[in-house]
Amino acid sequence: MTPFPFAAIVGQDEMKTAMILTAIDPKIGGVLVFGDRGTGKSTAVRALAALLPPIEAVKGCPVNSARFEDCPDWAQVTEAEIVTRPTPVVDLPLGVTEDRVTGALDIERALTRGEKAFEAGLLARANRGYLYIDEVNLLEDHIVDLLLDVAQSGENVVEREGMSIRHAARFVLVGSGNPEEGELRPQLLDRFGLSVEVTSPKEIDTRVEVIRRRDAYENDYDSFMAEWQPQDAALRARILAARAALAGVRSSNVVLHDCASVCVALGSDGLRGELTLLRTARALAAFEGAPEVTRAHIRAGAPMALRHRLRRDPLDEAGTGARVARQLAEVLP
Amino acid sequence: MTPFPFAAIVGQDEMKTAMILTAIDPKIGGVLVFGDRGTGKSTAVRALAALLPPIEAVKGCPVNSARFEDCPDWAQVTEAEIVTRPTPVVDLPLGVTEDRVTGALDIERALTRGEKAFEAGLLARANRGYLYIDEVNLLEDHIVDLLLDVAQSGENVVEREGMSIRHAARFVLVGSGNPEEGELRPQLLDRFGLSVEVTSPKEIDTRVEVIRRRDAYENDYDSFMAEWQPQDAALRARILAARAALAGVRSSNVVLHDCASVCVALGSDGLRGELTLLRTARALAAFEGAPEVTRAHIRAGAPMALRHRLRRDPLDEAGTGARVARQLAEVLP
Amino acid sequence: MTPFPFAAIVGQDEMKTAMILTAIDPKIGGVLVFGDRGTGKSTAVRALAALLPPIEAVKGCPVNSARFEDCPDWAQVTEAEIVTRPTPVVDLPLGVTEDRVTGALDIERALTRGEKAFEAGLLARANRGYLYIDEVNLLEDHIVDLLLDVAQSGENVVEREGMSIRHAARFVLVGSGNPEEGELRPQLLDRFGLSVEVTSPKEIDTRVEVIRRRDAYENDYDSFMAEWQPQDAALRARILAARAALAGVRSSNVVLHDCASVCVALGSDGLRGELTLLRTARALAAFEGAPEVTRAHIRAGAPMALRHRLRRDPLDEAGTGARVARQLAEVLP
Amino acid sequence: MTPFPFAAIVGQDEMKTAMILTAIDPKIGGVLVFGDRGTGKSTAVRALAALLPPIEAVKGCPVNSARFEDCPDWAQVTEAEIVTRPTPVVDLPLGVTEDRVTGALDIERALTRGEKAFEAGLLARANRGYLYIDEVNLLEDHIVDLLLDVAQSGENVVEREGMSIRHAARFVLVGSGNPEEGELRPQLLDRFGLSVEVTSPKEIDTRVEVIRRRDAYENDYDSFMAEWQPQDAALRARILAARAALAGVRSSNVVLHDCASVCVALGSDGLRGELTLLRTARALAAFEGAPEVTRAHIRAGAPMALRHRLRRDPLDEAGTGARVARQLAEVLP
Amino acid sequence: MTPFPFAAIVGQDEMKTAMILTAIDPKIGGVLVFGDRGTGKSTAVRALAALLPPIEAVKGCPVNSARFEDCPDWAQVTEAEIVTRPTPVVDLPLGVTEDRVTGALDIERALTRGEKAFEAGLLARANRGYLYIDEVNLLEDHIVDLLLDVAQSGENVVEREGMSIRHAARFVLVGSGNPEEGELRPQLLDRFGLSVEVTSPKEIDTRVEVIRRRDAYENDYDSFMAEWQPQDAALRARILAARAALAGVRSSNVVLHDCASVCVALGSDGLRGELTLLRTARALAAFEGAPEVTRAHIRAGAPMALRHRLRRDPLDEAGTGARVARQLAEVLP
Amino acid sequence: MTPFPFAAIVGQDEMKTAMILTAIDPKIGGVLVFGDRGTGKSTAVRALAALLPPIEAVKGCPVNSARFEDCPDWAQVTEAEIVTRPTPVVDLPLGVTEDRVTGALDIERALTRGEKAFEAGLLARANRGYLYIDEVNLLEDHIVDLLLDVAQSGENVVEREGMSIRHAARFVLVGSGNPEEGELRPQLLDRFGLSVEVTSPKEIDTRVEVIRRRDAYENDYDSFMAEWQPQDAALRARILAARAALAGVRSSNVVLHDCASVCVALGSDGLRGELTLLRTARALAAFEGAPEVTRAHIRAGAPMALRHRLRRDPLDEAGTGARVARQLAEVLP
Repeated sequence: MTPFPFAAIVGQDEMKTAMILTAIDPKIGGVLVFGDRGTGKSTAVRALAALLPPIEAVKGCPVNSARFEDCPDWAQVTEAEIVTRPTPVVDLPLGVTEDRVTGALDIERALTRGEKAFEAGLLARANRGYLYIDEVNLLEDHIVDLLLDVAQSGENVVEREGMSIRHAARFVLVGSGNPEEGELRPQLLDRFGLSVEVTSPKEIDTRVEVIRRRDAYENDYDSFMAEWQPQDAALRARILAARAALAGVRSSNVVLHDCASVCVALGSDGLRGELTLLRTARALAAFEGAPEVTRAHIRAGAPMALRHRLRRDPLDEAGTGARVARQLAEVLP
Repeated sequence: MTPFPFAAIVGQDEMKTAMILTAIDPKIGGVLVFGDRGTGKSTAVRALAALLPPIEAVKGCPVNSARFEDCPDWAQVTEAEIVTRPTPVVDLPLGVTEDRVTGALDIERALTRGEKAFEAGLLARANRGYLYIDEVNLLEDHIVDLLLDVAQSGENVVEREGMSIRHAARFVLVGSGNPEEGELRPQLLDRFGLSVEVTSPKEIDTRVEVIRRRDAYENDYDSFMAEWQPQDAALRARILAARAALAGVRSSNVVLHDCASVCVALGSDGLRGELTLLRTARALAAFEGAPEVTRAHIRAGAPMALRHRLRRDPLDEAGTGARVARQLAEVLP
Repeated sequence: MTPFPFAAIVGQDEMKTAMILTAIDPKIGGVLVFGDRGTGKSTAVRALAALLPPIEAVKGCPVNSARFEDCPDWAQVTEAEIVTRPTPVVDLPLGVTEDRVTGALDIERALTRGEKAFEAGLLARANRGYLYIDEVNLLEDHIVDLLLDVAQSGENVVEREGMSIRHAARFVLVGSGNPEEGELRPQLLDRFGLSVEVTSPKEIDTRVEVIRRRDAYENDYDSFMAEWQPQDAALRARILAARAALAGVRSSNVVLHDCASVCVALGSDGLRGELTLLRTARALAAFEGAPEVTRAHIRAGAPMALRHRLRRDPLDEAGTGARVARQLAEVLP
Repeated sequence: MTPFPFAAIVGQDEMKTAMILTAIDPKIGGVLVFGDRGTGKSTAVRALAALLPPIEAVKGCPVNSARFEDCPDWAQVTEAEIVTRPTPVVDLPLGVTEDRVTGALDIERALTRGEKAFEAGLLARANRGYLYIDEVNLLEDHIVDLLLDVAQSGENVVEREGMSIRHAARFVLVGSGNPEEGELRPQLLDRFGLSVEVTSPKEIDTRVEVIRRRDAYENDYDSFMAEWQPQDAALRARILAARAALAGVRSSNVVLHDCASVCVALGSDGLRGELTLLRTARALAAFEGAPEVTRAHIRAGAPMALRHRLRRDPLDEAGTGARVARQLAEVLP
Repeated sequence: MTPFPFAAIVGQDEMKTAMILTAIDPKIGGVLVFGDRGTGKSTAVRALAALLPPIEAVKGCPVNSARFEDCPDWAQVTEAEIVTRPTPVVDLPLGVTEDRVTGALDIERALTRGEKAFEAGLLARANRGYLYIDEVNLLEDHIVDLLLDVAQSGENVVEREGMSIRHAARFVLVGSGNPEEGELRPQLLDRFGLSVEVTSPKEIDTRVEVIRRRDAYENDYDSFMAEWQPQDAALRARILAARAALAGVRSSNVVLHDCASVCVALGSDGLRGELTLLRTARALAAFEGAPEVTRAHIRAGAPMALRHRLRRDPLDEAGTGARVARQLAEVLP
Repeated sequence: MTPFPFAAIVGQDEMKTAMILTAIDPKIGGVLVFGDRGTGKSTAVRALAALLPPIEAVKGCPVNSARFEDCPDWAQVTEAEIVTRPTPVVDLPLGVTEDRVTGALDIERALTRGEKAFEAGLLARANRGYLYIDEVNLLEDHIVDLLLDVAQSGENVVEREGMSIRHAARFVLVGSGNPEEGELRPQLLDRFGLSVEVTSPKEIDTRVEVIRRRDAYENDYDSFMAEWQPQDAALRARILAARAALAGVRSSNVVLHDCASVCVALGSDGLRGELTLLRTARALAAFEGAPEVTRAHIRAGAPMALRHRLRRDPLDEAGTGARVARQLAEVLP
């Protein structure tokens, strides 16, 4: 059964936009989705997986390399044939062990053939795609650290059991978390490119619409999909167009200046904020078909790019969203 | 010895109804039974197991698949013969290890034949049936998380010991817990479809009736069963009828609206409440033979579907049961 | 050397009665002996072991099955010969590992013959007998939970190391504990059928009698045993008579009503109290040769059956023993 | 080099007496030596080992059995020859593992011959002798519990790694502890028969004498041993005589009464106090060559037999030694 | 893709100088970089790796020995050919295990050939180069202790799994840490030669310049590298010249006196401060081409050599940087 | 490169004396060096190793036995040839495992030849020499306990993995510790014979001298060694002469009395203080060539022998060094 269509998700616009932007420019980094339980976070990730355009990769390459010469030595790929695959969306199941994440010694070959071969893990499988962690807070810290580290460097380095292996592991990390179950560590937050907040809709009509669509999807599948799949296809086409346009989108000095001003005004640590904000605004411009980044793009991208990078200000009772909005209004009038 | 008859359980109507509804529509999700020790929670689950209609499944399929083509690859089922089996009711024994829950590498085959074969676990055995956890609080957290995760997704994904296996694991989780032994985590609560409270009866006569039936069951087994087994059979027939009717039960817009209104009024997080409430009311309607869901069904199903999803309100001293009742009276007069 | 005779134990009448009653009706459940160190708890259990009548069991059956058809498959018993054995009294040594309690993979056979065979543990050996835990509080929690769980269900379910084994494990659990070394968890208490308190005698003459008998046992063994063994034999005969009479002892509605009234008045949780009290009173009646249970039997059995099931009442400073006595006087005058 | 002679130990009379009494009647139980570091506890145990008379045992028997028929099956002793051995004094080295204490599967035989054989541990070696634990508090709790348990029952029961082994393990436990490093648990104290306190001498002359003897032992070994070995030999002869006399020492009712009275007056828990006191007094009588136990023997033995069994009395500021003395003066004037 | 050029890093002069000085004289010891996240610490280390001049080493030697006779025995190097290699810059990946750091038994050879061979670890690979630890605080303490110990002694001693191995392990440790995530232990600080602080630039223009260069590097790679690589080459030449000059740089008595005076005035513990300060000043002089160390060199090197060695002074509210500056002004006017 | 010469260490006289005294009479016991980091503790131990006279030992004996008949059985030494070796100075590397300290089963021989052979550990290697622990506080407690235990008894007893091995392990333990990193346990302190305190010199000139000598050692090695090696040789000769004289040094009754008086006055626990003080004073006398121990020797040795044995006196604010000095002045005027 095809997942619930991305376009048929009711509301949750910020989450949907953030996911689309990372599909246009994966360098923006991961997306952290904050929100109550039952707000459809998992549904959205499944829907995104079905929406994404396929990739071309070397047949049999465990890390989905685009070119034969990029297949890692240890994979012993012998043929350069290129095949089409769905964009990988890898799910981290609960109880996953570190060896399955990073890959590990292939015990079977070690025992039967006496060879020290590497068996690729989930990080290999996620290369050039998405890695989804439901409830980051239920994963053990050392696995989270490991994932963020690899997400940052784009490379999986394994130094264990007498093996020294490295392979490309460039993926967009999508994590969901519930702020009520304990705050996330600041270093962790900073490693995500964007963050969005999702909440249950408060209006009865919106809620009824959610139940109605869900009910239709389950009880009237065929006509429901006939209605929504074209919309998903249109969105996919727009993402592909934006990808092609991305390199040509210009960003003036004023725009760079705006990025820096907002970050300084908000007191976000380090320089990751600026770079992410610039990339987010550029992807937005490409999505809209605009020839260059404008202040409007920066204003639109700032909340998701910066919300999770603010230092806590005990004198400012307003939530982080409100603070970003107020500063934006001041700095970029 | 046949278990104590389901119909002969004295009182505990809410618990019995909840169990029957999940037998009619397993999509409602699991049942969490709160209550003091010694109130017959285990007895009820054993009785339910004897009450449930049998299923048809492929002979030798470790996940009880209904069709040959659904048997997982790793199971190497070669014959499509269909057999009748009791609905599986799997018990999680104390001291169960994660590998027995999810399944694991078959060590014997690995050692003797050098093959990396999968040996199915309790989740496989519970597919299309029930999984019972006595005293959820005595299970280790990581096993509880794992069970809830699988119960939610309907699929068991195993990524360990160099294996990457997935198989259907759709089951109704029945858990018993004692709120005095520490509160359950909110995320855990939300993953259960229904919750019911059982208490020791306070009236002497009811208690005497309990002892009398129990004594008769033990000391006068044959005539006791002769009295009660027909009643269990009638109940089983009614469940089967309700299952058949379920798809045809209509739910009007008013009903959807009612579901949303109750949930908003009660402040239940997320949207799982609405969907569960709708399914519960629909199963109730089917059980009663009603052609469509009415407000009365919603009113009857709301306490079990929503009680465990309320946010704690420190200003409201009344118990959660009373709060649900009061809101229902206001919202659905 | 034969253990110290049961009949020669000075005082400690409640403990001795409780042990005798479980020998008459094992369904009463386990006995928890509270008391200071050095009050002869271990001595009493050893003495009980010597007092109990032998059982008949299939030769070579690891779970002491009474009939050939009850021997578990995995035991591969091939001969139906019936032999006489002492009632098993199994001691849980300190440092026992979980695999020895439940049984586990037989490593020797696994290694030498490549077979996945089950090697029975202490729970198998204790079937149809007694399992003694000295100082419950020194055992690890997960082993205590496991023992109580099996004692309750009468079945040992092993799901580990790729094995799925079950066998009968019906035994009376006798545990000793010292309330000064930390309270026992309420769920743990409730799983024991009876509880008794033992204390060091305070009167000099009683203490002198204890030392005298002990001294005689050690220094004048033959004449000491000549004096006491006939008394043990008489007690054994009486237990056997009571077992035979048990099924015929009548219990009127008034008696059921009395059980319920006492439990409600004492506020004992759940319904295990009533059932245990009924069985205890019935075993007492059988021991006394009475044709039916009377209020006097209930009154006599109530302290041991209920003492450990009371909710703590902070306003009632009197000990639990005194509370039971006072309520009994009111409810069953 | 022969250890420092027992007789040449300066002062520390109570400790020396306690050790001699356990050599006369091992049933008295273990000795717990409290005291500051550097007071010669280890030296005394080494000296005792050299003082003790040898035992006769079956050649090659791992548990030092006195008779061929007592050698355990698993030991596969084939010859009944009796040899003379020093009384075993086994030292528990730090870092000892549980398998070396209790014995364990003989891995070498398991690997090379595929047999599940038992390899005896320190408890076997200590049978019929002494087991010395320096600084009980540095041992892990579970090993201490295990030792006390075996010391009490006289039998080592091993239920692990698929083996079920038991053998005699009767030994006197000598432990040293420093009360400043944390109190010992009451149950632990109660399992020791006697306790003594050692302190550094406060008088200069005594201390000089200690250094002088120690210096002579090290720098003038031959003439020092020539002086003291005859005194050790005389002591050994006296112990042997007392052992022979022990069974014939009478204890009147008055004496039993005295034992009980002292214990009741002191409020010692349980009845182990009385029995130990009786045995201690009887061993003292035998050591002195007295035909029967007198009140003087009880008075002399009471401090070491009872000091560690008193309940703490917060209103009584005097040390436990003083309390014993005061009560003795009142009860046995 | 060549890393970002070292010379193109905007600002962060102290960090860059510290890294250059250790490249001139590795005996100065490691560099600890304190600072917020996102300030380019990792970028700087990658840039340094590309900047460093290559080394000459024996082909196939696992510890990069310069001479054949220095290759360790266990490496079984048989040929003395000298090859040119990049200066090793070894990265400690998260989740690294102790055996991969120190090296360990080569399991493959042990299993297949029955030999106890040593497989070198990261410490071997880092010999004569750099070892980089990102976020020292995320590494386990025992691994940090081990690294500092080896960094200090210049030798890796492995005593485990029955092997006793030692090999040269002289490397410069570069660690990054965030003081907000908990203070580092004083002993740890003292083992680093130099420490520097990096912060996000506060001026908009600087930040814009950072983004601009970063953007150019990513979007206009070729012309960006054409601009900056010559500057890196010039810096490399200057480092090589300074290395050659180092031995000839004179340090007068006055200079030694200055070093000691500053350290005494600052109250830095131990004498490592003086020695490091002297070496730092000497490397600075060599870098500047000066014939002897002057007070100016000491003044310039003191902050990085001493900042992390000050005792905390609760009365001095000024930061450690300010304290060093003030004392320098007083002591070396 | 020969270590830094012992004689060239600037100041630190007490530490140097303590090390020399243990070289004269190893029975004095270990040395504990307290002090800040960077005060040259490790340098001093390395220097001592180079200073010590060589020993004669049986070739191939793993415990450096002086005589063929002392080689342990398990070592299977077959030839009695005597060779000269440097006095062993064994370093405990961080991360050392217990099996490498005590020795353990030789896994290689076990696997390849099926023999249960012992592979000696660091304690064997250190026999008749020194064992150095840098930063006692970084070692795990159970390893420290084990080392102190062996250092005390002079014998390594291994009871693990089915082996029962003992061998001589007489060595001087030298430990360094930093009192600021948590107090050492009193029992630990008492097991060391001597303790000394080292501090960074406060005078500029001394510090300059330290840097100057260190600099000369590194930059002008040959002439520096030509200056200092003769001084080390002279010291070595003096140590050998003192060893020869030691046995003949007399100690009068007055001297024994003085030892006891000082210890009583200082309230040092136990009697180890006296014996250590006597040996220290005697070694000092031998070092000075004096024919008998005088009060001056006692006065000189008392601070290092007793400083770490004092009970803490909360009313005495003066440091322990000052307390020893004051008491000495009173007791031995």
